[in-house]
Amino acid sequence: MTDEHSITRMDAFTYRRVLAEEDPVVLIPVGAMEQHGPHMPISVDVLLSTRITELVAEELGAALVAPAVTTGYKSQQRSGGGNHIIGSFGFDASTVVSVCQTLVRELARHGARRIAFVNGHYENYQFIYEGVDLALRELGGQRAGVQVMMLSYWDYVTDDVISRLYPDGFPGWDVEHGGVMETSLMLEYFPDLVAMDRVMDLPAAQLPLYDLLPVDPGLTPDSGCLSSGRQASAEKGRVLASSIVPGIVQAVRNRLEV
Amino acid sequence: MTDEHSITRMDAFTYRRVLAEEDPVVLIPVGAMEQHGPHMPISVDVLLSTRITELVAEELGAALVAPAVTTGYKSQQRSGGGNHIIGSFGFDASTVVSVCQTLVRELARHGARRIAFVNGHYENYQFIYEGVDLALRELGGQRAGVQVMMLSYWDYVTDDVISRLYPDGFPGWDVEHGGVMETSLMLEYFPDLVAMDRVMDLPAAQLPLYDLLPVDPGLTPDSGCLSSGRQASAEKGRVLASSIVPGIVQAVRNRLEV
Amino acid sequence: MTDEHSITRMDAFTYRRVLAEEDPVVLIPVGAMEQHGPHMPISVDVLLSTRITELVAEELGAALVAPAVTTGYKSQQRSGGGNHIIGSFGFDASTVVSVCQTLVRELARHGARRIAFVNGHYENYQFIYEGVDLALRELGGQRAGVQVMMLSYWDYVTDDVISRLYPDGFPGWDVEHGGVMETSLMLEYFPDLVAMDRVMDLPAAQLPLYDLLPVDPGLTPDSGCLSSGRQASAEKGRVLASSIVPGIVQAVRNRLEV
Amino acid sequence: MTDEHSITRMDAFTYRRVLAEEDPVVLIPVGAMEQHGPHMPISVDVLLSTRITELVAEELGAALVAPAVTTGYKSQQRSGGGNHIIGSFGFDASTVVSVCQTLVRELARHGARRIAFVNGHYENYQFIYEGVDLALRELGGQRAGVQVMMLSYWDYVTDDVISRLYPDGFPGWDVEHGGVMETSLMLEYFPDLVAMDRVMDLPAAQLPLYDLLPVDPGLTPDSGCLSSGRQASAEKGRVLASSIVPGIVQAVRNRLEV
Amino acid sequence: MTDEHSITRMDAFTYRRVLAEEDPVVLIPVGAMEQHGPHMPISVDVLLSTRITELVAEELGAALVAPAVTTGYKSQQRSGGGNHIIGSFGFDASTVVSVCQTLVRELARHGARRIAFVNGHYENYQFIYEGVDLALRELGGQRAGVQVMMLSYWDYVTDDVISRLYPDGFPGWDVEHGGVMETSLMLEYFPDLVAMDRVMDLPAAQLPLYDLLPVDPGLTPDSGCLSSGRQASAEKGRVLASSIVPGIVQAVRNRLEV
Amino acid sequence: MTDEHSITRMDAFTYRRVLAEEDPVVLIPVGAMEQHGPHMPISVDVLLSTRITELVAEELGAALVAPAVTTGYKSQQRSGGGNHIIGSFGFDASTVVSVCQTLVRELARHGARRIAFVNGHYENYQFIYEGVDLALRELGGQRAGVQVMMLSYWDYVTDDVISRLYPDGFPGWDVEHGGVMETSLMLEYFPDLVAMDRVMDLPAAQLPLYDLLPVDPGLTPDSGCLSSGRQASAEKGRVLASSIVPGIVQAVRNRLEV
Repeated sequence: MTDEHSITRMDAFTYRRVLAEEDPVVLIPVGAMEQHGPHMPISVDVLLSTRITELVAEELGAALVAPAVTTGYKSQQRSGGGNHIIGSFGFDASTVVSVCQTLVRELARHGARRIAFVNGHYENYQFIYEGVDLALRELGGQRAGVQVMMLSYWDYVTDDVISRLYPDGFPGWDVEHGGVMETSLMLEYFPDLVAMDRVMDLPAAQLPLYDLLPVDPGLTPDSGCLSSGRQASAEKGRVLASSIVPGIVQAVRNRLEV
Repeated sequence: MTDEHSITRMDAFTYRRVLAEEDPVVLIPVGAMEQHGPHMPISVDVLLSTRITELVAEELGAALVAPAVTTGYKSQQRSGGGNHIIGSFGFDASTVVSVCQTLVRELARHGARRIAFVNGHYENYQFIYEGVDLALRELGGQRAGVQVMMLSYWDYVTDDVISRLYPDGFPGWDVEHGGVMETSLMLEYFPDLVAMDRVMDLPAAQLPLYDLLPVDPGLTPDSGCLSSGRQASAEKGRVLASSIVPGIVQAVRNRLEV
Repeated sequence: MTDEHSITRMDAFTYRRVLAEEDPVVLIPVGAMEQHGPHMPISVDVLLSTRITELVAEELGAALVAPAVTTGYKSQQRSGGGNHIIGSFGFDASTVVSVCQTLVRELARHGARRIAFVNGHYENYQFIYEGVDLALRELGGQRAGVQVMMLSYWDYVTDDVISRLYPDGFPGWDVEHGGVMETSLMLEYFPDLVAMDRVMDLPAAQLPLYDLLPVDPGLTPDSGCLSSGRQASAEKGRVLASSIVPGIVQAVRNRLEV
Repeated sequence: MTDEHSITRMDAFTYRRVLAEEDPVVLIPVGAMEQHGPHMPISVDVLLSTRITELVAEELGAALVAPAVTTGYKSQQRSGGGNHIIGSFGFDASTVVSVCQTLVRELARHGARRIAFVNGHYENYQFIYEGVDLALRELGGQRAGVQVMMLSYWDYVTDDVISRLYPDGFPGWDVEHGGVMETSLMLEYFPDLVAMDRVMDLPAAQLPLYDLLPVDPGLTPDSGCLSSGRQASAEKGRVLASSIVPGIVQAVRNRLEV
Repeated sequence: MTDEHSITRMDAFTYRRVLAEEDPVVLIPVGAMEQHGPHMPISVDVLLSTRITELVAEELGAALVAPAVTTGYKSQQRSGGGNHIIGSFGFDASTVVSVCQTLVRELARHGARRIAFVNGHYENYQFIYEGVDLALRELGGQRAGVQVMMLSYWDYVTDDVISRLYPDGFPGWDVEHGGVMETSLMLEYFPDLVAMDRVMDLPAAQLPLYDLLPVDPGLTPDSGCLSSGRQASAEKGRVLASSIVPGIVQAVRNRLEV
Repeated sequence: MTDEHSITRMDAFTYRRVLAEEDPVVLIPVGAMEQHGPHMPISVDVLLSTRITELVAEELGAALVAPAVTTGYKSQQRSGGGNHIIGSFGFDASTVVSVCQTLVRELARHGARRIAFVNGHYENYQFIYEGVDLALRELGGQRAGVQVMMLSYWDYVTDDVISRLYPDGFPGWDVEHGGVMETSLMLEYFPDLVAMDRVMDLPAAQLPLYDLLPVDPGLTPDSGCLSSGRQASAEKGRVLASSIVPGIVQAVRNRLEV
């Protein structure tokens, strides 16, 4: 991607011109700092949500990519292994909420009228939602003239792709922590940051239908991943991306008329 | 159910004796005040989570039912129709969190060592989790000697029951707002509060893979329900309960050794 | 009471119709979960404030009863025995405030223009007030067109009734915790939940003119009640109610022009 | 009073010596900035609570007077005329709570083991209580070895004094806003700040048994006072003080063993 | 100073008249309760900021002095010796912010259109700023028609005065804690509260270019002062004041057109 | 720099090994998203604080670089041009505080015993300090065994370097927003992100000795920079870095015994 969509690499004069002339949608990647096993870096959720957002922006054209939210909510055992693990940085609900709320408030002040959060950390979703809701209440609701979409990128993997990639049955996105999807996308976009020889090929976690606190650490596989990334490949990453990116692009186009 | 498990109907001397002698698990129903279409009352989520919790308590024996949390999180369009609808009372994240946090803090002070939240309002879950996490941090984590389970009751409907009850395919729990499951359970336990002749038999909502705020009201069916309750029956309610209640009982028994 | 006034038992379509056509006052009972001695249940303050509110609604006609606030403020020694006692669930000021604030915000969004909080737990009052004040500030004060009354039900017992019921002198409402008034009202409305044979007939508490924290537990009678309920009777409950209910009805009518 | 008890006028070396050697009780006056009619200054509640506290400290000997809390809670119509009036500075509950909480936290860090809040603004009381409760929770409750008393000074006017000073019947402390008690105490201690010729001799306010927000300004007398100060005198101030000061001294002595 | 500018000593009727007729600037002194060595009282920052503000008000004419903020932020080692020292009362950021926010909100409600905070405690500044910013956001920004200045008084000592008073080189305002400037101003305005014979004439603190928490107490001189007040004199206090007061007066005049 | 110090690019297994075996200091860069004129990107403060921190880590050896804090406090006119400018993203004090507090809490949970915040956005400092203070209070102060340093990188430019780089007199770090220092460091480390032909060579801002809110936009130069970056060069960037990096390295070594 060129830098032309990235707010963080853009000077403010250009940013103001783009906002005024192109009326772009502002896309906000939301990730976390969370352990992703021995084979991937702690910033997987930031990296992937940002890269996917950049690709979406490129397709959309009239789009800007905001600085990624890196202060993700606490890892939960059933979707991220649990926040007891060293290497996960869990922020409280109130912090995640206020970071998202501020981004909406500030972008609205800047004149943005269309905003979309692109989430890459399962646990974040409800707190992004609350941040947006509080921001819009503060801005006066409908009167503000601002529309905010919120989505998680894996929801845009089509059933067709799922059945191709998981021929033995799809375990659900929640246990996809450090598994085939994330590892494949990392291999496609950040191959230097993946060490496939360090993948711990353990059976998928068998997690109960409840959460328990304090966590019972024994329920999380030793890898910290909820399923194995062994079957991941850059090719699968491309297949996933070819489903995710156009899916999000279309959703944003349809809804926000970009 | 007799009143013998209900904390709200129990005097404090009995409560203290039960806590000291029986070391019961304390079950906390969590609902909301939320519109559920023209055929069911606003308190469906409180009523059902409470009744299911009472049935679980009866099975468990050494169990108490705490006062239900009625201050549920805002209705979201994809799971409850949206909080723009008159008749839904949406509480902020911080309020839901602090109510749940207090219940854990106070029950721990009372000497309870095993607590389980039984959720009946989809949107609540992450905020219950945060409340529990903050309470345990405050109490000193593992040192507190308190274990807290969190679950949503529909997760205990088995696949077998799902395929029996939804022969034409299961639309997912999120669109079960005011639909077959909730209506059937209400017919089984609170038939006086259901008006089947007022069911609006509309097609299930076709909701996108994202949230939008401010809500586009047109996406929610006129009934406020995300699927139709027309096919509901008390019989189906019994089938559902026969899956849910023993499922939760077993989970609590296994995990908390009640 | 029929269900026709209870929001929790009403469907949202009916609720909307009533709000639009009858412009009702919305009455909000406020209680607590607090020990009330060995002879009464923990939910006395919820039960009584709710029942009194229902009776007031019935008299008023154009009135709705909102779901009761059960998250009451911490029991204080001089009015409730103290929050050190097992069986009292004390919520922080910020929680009580935000629950009340949300109810006003949501009712205003629903179109209610007249709201009244009917308090049944002494310690709550200032926190209800703060919640209402913050809600109105948020709604824009006078411009919101919403009026909110706040009252505690015992203030509507007339001097005449007091002198009839307490021939030996009235000890004050603060020490009426678990005493003649509350027990009599419970006997009148919830006789199944009162065990008169379990009343501990202890002298009224001699509490100092100050609070002390941490509490000196020795100052609270062993019953947890601040005065004895021995002299209570359903008859006295009727007399009390015959003073309270019309008093509140008249106050609401005069002020809110219902 | 000499300065020997006043923390604000004491150097820190002396303060540390006194705390270490004399184990004093630390008394904290709590007031407000609130209109008190045309004849008294806005700071009446700060002035009187501070002066009374100083006199108590002098009697006790081993006592220090902390800086007064001036950030009082919002004036309420039934006890202070209402916070709609220009000249009253109303702080939110959370602010009053955190100021009191900090004072306890910091005094405990300094080594103080006995603390007493002396309140002079009716509306403050519950928020002082919450601040103390939160501070003690934070400090570890009983383990902190800190005891905190909370009182309002008018509660120490004896019945005997009341019947002497209000021969025509006592209207209650709530309507004593700007009336005989406060004006008399001001005349005794701060005569230069009272303008008796500016007293507006209006009938006592006839306030209802409820609060209303937004306030109905018409219920507050034009003076902003809830009863008339016309009958006030320095002599009555002395009589009041002769009841209040020894009363508080004795309560503190008995409870905190100063 | 006469009392004619002091809000705390003014009755509300006069306050209202002055606000309406003179459109005054309202000046708010901001201090702290913080140790200032063995030779000066704990309230130095409150006393000096208040006195300087009073002098500014007198010069300005159309000016009122609000009650001083005494709830200052925690003493930091590099500017106040550190909040580990007994005798400093450190309030959390959120408390300082909300106190300042409330003052702006309430003064705006009273009709004040021009407000200036005069800070006398180094650590406060950013929290005053945040309080003002939040208040103005709440009031609607520019639309509120309220202007708020914020300054620290020592910034108005001219370079000329500095070179006269510190012939051996100026160490910076941060280490002026308890040193020549504060002691001289105290000698000029509150000589009774300074004990020059108790000055500990220690070398100025050599503090590093960073903060450390927990504080290394050894870095703060035993006096608690960061430089010695030995060279202080009332004469120097006059010189300082002759720079500070007119400087602030001119800044306020120019900016707020008083 | 290699990736060996960057937590975000490190897998959690390696992170745990390094923490356990090397007992490293964890360095946290703190920046902001803030306009920096037409010639530099919005993320200057994040980029520079991160790069300087990486260089410090490389020198220290036993050091890790945490994910940068990008949620900086609001731009203030006297140090950043003001938060009214489109292109600056200003976070509230409470958000900045809680982000920093969480980082300390989580790093302490991970076992880090030595932490240093390296600030690159003038306005942040007091909020970093508050976050650290709250985290340490929560962790139990000294008992936590955690030491946290806080510094701003420009404080490590020596006087010698200043006089070399600013031969015509040093205007102060506050007006160095977008000026010679920042531009030179950017030219040295991120030349692709600087457009020297877009520098607006305006006179340095003449800002008053106070802040004003709402901001008077006319006081900020049209460039948004407080001084001109025209005289910047990569060579100057190297000189600055040669002062800053070893200065911070030495300070951390001396204090934290790395």
